[in-house]
Amino acid sequence: MKDKIIETSIKLFDKKGYTATSIKDIVEKMDVTKGTFYYYFSSKQDLLRDIHLDYIENLISQQEDILRNTDKDCTEKLYGIIHMVISNIGTKRESARIFFREMRHLSEKHIEEITNKRNLFRKNYQQLIETGISLGEFKSSIPPDMLTFGILGITNWSYYWYNPEGNIDEEELARIYTDIILNGVKSIKKAGITL
Amino acid sequence: MKDKIIETSIKLFDKKGYTATSIKDIVEKMDVTKGTFYYYFSSKQDLLRDIHLDYIENLISQQEDILRNTDKDCTEKLYGIIHMVISNIGTKRESARIFFREMRHLSEKHIEEITNKRNLFRKNYQQLIETGISLGEFKSSIPPDMLTFGILGITNWSYYWYNPEGNIDEEELARIYTDIILNGVKSIKKAGITL
Repeated sequence: MKDKIIETSIKLFDKKGYTATSIKDIVEKMDVTKGTFYYYFSSKQDLLRDIHLDYIENLISQQEDILRNTDKDCTEKLYGIIHMVISNIGTKRESARIFFREMRHLSEKHIEEITNKRNLFRKNYQQLIETGISLGEFKSSIPPDMLTFGILGITNWSYYWYNPEGNIDEEELARIYTDIILNGVKSIKKAGITL
Repeated sequence: MKDKIIETSIKLFDKKGYTATSIKDIVEKMDVTKGTFYYYFSSKQDLLRDIHLDYIENLISQQEDILRNTDKDCTEKLYGIIHMVISNIGTKRESARIFFREMRHLSEKHIEEITNKRNLFRKNYQQLIETGISLGEFKSSIPPDMLTFGILGITNWSYYWYNPEGNIDEEELARIYTDIILNGVKSIKKAGITL
């Protein structure tokens, strides 16, 4: 039942926005009583915090699995995380949009809790870039923090436009973006190198 | 007065969200009457549409100025647009966040109007990439539409984290991102080329 409430609310929050969606809207949509809602959540904000926490903890756990894999070099791990984030669009698009849009409606305490987890996800990414630089896989001229924000931008933005049912599948999109980040788009001929 | 209403509303919408901000909130903040508001706007939605339209038309106009410049090649124009978008963060951060978050609250007709303009901005970008490929400046192996979404992701995301008053100025951030997009981050040594 708890999962069903979360799932229904995510759809309503995505469509109408958090502020315009009432607990009454949620329980009516599910055909249950308000008592059922309050059995699982103390308030609408408590529910919003759960949605945020589920979303970011799930991402961190998948990211840390990839980072722990000792068989992969930093380049492969970078591809792995980009692919993981893009693959989540199919199942987590609505949660992600709520995550990006509605955080300011959380209480100060919960904003801090979620911000710390967002920062952990970003710092794990940055740590990977820094390790890649120290092992000679990535250029030392690139500021790791700015690169991390750039990569987050590419993949987070894809939640607004990418359709996993369309022409390009998740592996291919992840490969295209990893290729751009690693090798750039400048024509090799123009770079003065003949291969 | 109209500009003052827009400016005040942008701040309130950014802080509390469009739905939770009433016309009463806006006029009280400005210490004017509701009559003043209705002299300039027929509704709160009419005001939201104006904010969206101002934001995107201003971006398109700056973009088209850069694209028309016949003294610059596609690589320089790419830098120019990235720099222009990042430079807007200082003055347009709040408008941009409203633009990214609140579009779903517009009427269907207005959503279509704004979507057409967003698409024009994106297609102008993609046209630049395609011209760059045909002139041999960019690699032909990169899908221009996916690259365009990627670049939009990098710059749009910077509205959520970049502080123009911080350590890295707008020119430098634009240079870093243009460099990553053009040249990639893979260490040249690892790519098997000795320079």
